[in-house]
Amino acid sequence: MPASIRIIEVGPRDGLQNESTPIPTHVKLEFVQNLIEAGITEIEATSFVSSKWVPQLADAQELWPQLPPGPLYSALVPNEKGLQRAIQLKVQRIAVFTAASDAFTQKNINMSVEQSLESFKQVIHTFRQHMPHGWVRAYVSTAFECPYAGKIDPTQTTNVAIKLLEMNVDEISIGDTIGVAVPHEVEILTEKLLKEIPKERLAYHFHDTRGTAIANVAKALEMGITTFDSSAGGLGGCPYAPGAGGNLATEDLIYFLHRSGIQTNINELKLAQASLGVLEHLHRAPAAKAQLAILAKECRPQ
Amino acid sequence: MPASIRIIEVGPRDGLQNESTPIPTHVKLEFVQNLIEAGITEIEATSFVSSKWVPQLADAQELWPQLPPGPLYSALVPNEKGLQRAIQLKVQRIAVFTAASDAFTQKNINMSVEQSLESFKQVIHTFRQHMPHGWVRAYVSTAFECPYAGKIDPTQTTNVAIKLLEMNVDEISIGDTIGVAVPHEVEILTEKLLKEIPKERLAYHFHDTRGTAIANVAKALEMGITTFDSSAGGLGGCPYAPGAGGNLATEDLIYFLHRSGIQTNINELKLAQASLGVLEHLHRAPAAKAQLAILAKECRPQ
Repeated sequence: MPASIRIIEVGPRDGLQNESTPIPTHVKLEFVQNLIEAGITEIEATSFVSSKWVPQLADAQELWPQLPPGPLYSALVPNEKGLQRAIQLKVQRIAVFTAASDAFTQKNINMSVEQSLESFKQVIHTFRQHMPHGWVRAYVSTAFECPYAGKIDPTQTTNVAIKLLEMNVDEISIGDTIGVAVPHEVEILTEKLLKEIPKERLAYHFHDTRGTAIANVAKALEMGITTFDSSAGGLGGCPYAPGAGGNLATEDLIYFLHRSGIQTNINELKLAQASLGVLEHLHRAPAAKAQLAILAKECRPQ
Repeated sequence: MPASIRIIEVGPRDGLQNESTPIPTHVKLEFVQNLIEAGITEIEATSFVSSKWVPQLADAQELWPQLPPGPLYSALVPNEKGLQRAIQLKVQRIAVFTAASDAFTQKNINMSVEQSLESFKQVIHTFRQHMPHGWVRAYVSTAFECPYAGKIDPTQTTNVAIKLLEMNVDEISIGDTIGVAVPHEVEILTEKLLKEIPKERLAYHFHDTRGTAIANVAKALEMGITTFDSSAGGLGGCPYAPGAGGNLATEDLIYFLHRSGIQTNINELKLAQASLGVLEHLHRAPAAKAQLAILAKECRPQ
């Protein structure tokens, strides 16, 4: 087990982007402040995406300058236009988005995977010119299976990751977008990836749709991966029912790590409380398992 | 990975015992019938416990003779009195209940662990006399941690298991009763247990209270354990909130196994539907992750 790991909190961006109930900017800022107080140090805060595509994040330009100091913030940048907005705001850390499956990128960003990689070249080039000390992360979604094209060959995912590495991306986040993977598949893919890519440049982004996310984290950790994405309260990806798993909940991840002897500076109770304001706005009860367990234990009347 | 595993469905007993809303016997029987149709082959169907202690299972005597043929059924037997009722009904498979923690057995069965083991000797002796081909399972609860006494030394759990083995129990089910364990702890305990007890006689009973159950199953499987308890719909142990984890959901277990290349004869859709009638009686929406995922996918209008 590694001595420490990095956690990228994606709740404010990935966790909210598909929510149709608009969350006011001040509620998002409180959420971020709560995350900081809980000890979170890296946050993907928003996306400079067209407000037509993602109305929830239409306030990116207003939100960004108000983010409280402390953590490392990043923002998703879907294209040149978004990049220009990010550069104006002096965003130092950006993320770009592609997938292992053409069918998925076609549906989501109207490009093939190859075309998306081509478009990144220009985006990254421009970004590096403006931000020579900047940091670029790339998401590879549907790394195990695509909802349209079915199972994905690990070689296909690895090839996309290699191309991103060649473009000098700082970090590649491998996503089980529909939450189907099991540890055996994580083992096979990770083995392939580690032959080509230094482990410090790899992250995993697991979804807990079928209850396997922590098992997958455990396997990836065993193999040397030390960076994981998660979302406070499991925000994001609960399209069909409360309690249904989307993003791996940061609470579940932190519980697992602490109990496994890997310390972080994150306070479990403050973390469990961090998303409550957002959840209230979404008219949703907390549903992440470790979050519920700690709230039930710690928030009883004294 | 083993070629096959055994699953003990504990929903009708462990899943219901703490529910205060009375479930009519015919609804329980439908639940069992649904489980059979889904392909479940071993079911802990009820408990011959005093109806004062567990009102929900007061219908054990009425239920037992009506159980549909097919699976192997077992029943919990807390003491000599319960055993007599079981023997009258020709119950061939019984389960007894102790823990690794004195504080826990004191609170639950008003005995020390040692006293509970002493009482089993007589129960098992009487049972074997009446049912020479019978089968006895013993639960060791709080195997990792006790809600009253804190963390449990793996040696303590192993010692209880050894004593049960010496009493010629057929199977020992090791329970993470409050759902706190992580794979590293499972590894340490399993290593100790396997030095003393043949793996065919060990089962794990994980709770998913903090999202770690599948990770724990994965680790135990890796180490050679092939019998697991689970509860359809994750019934049982949701005392504080819907969606909160108690028993490992059979749906999550089966999804994980199938996707990991371990085949069973269990139909995932039928399994996901099996507990819906009981849940309706409890006025509760389904909340197990793989159950929700499959219901969302398969039950949309065509």
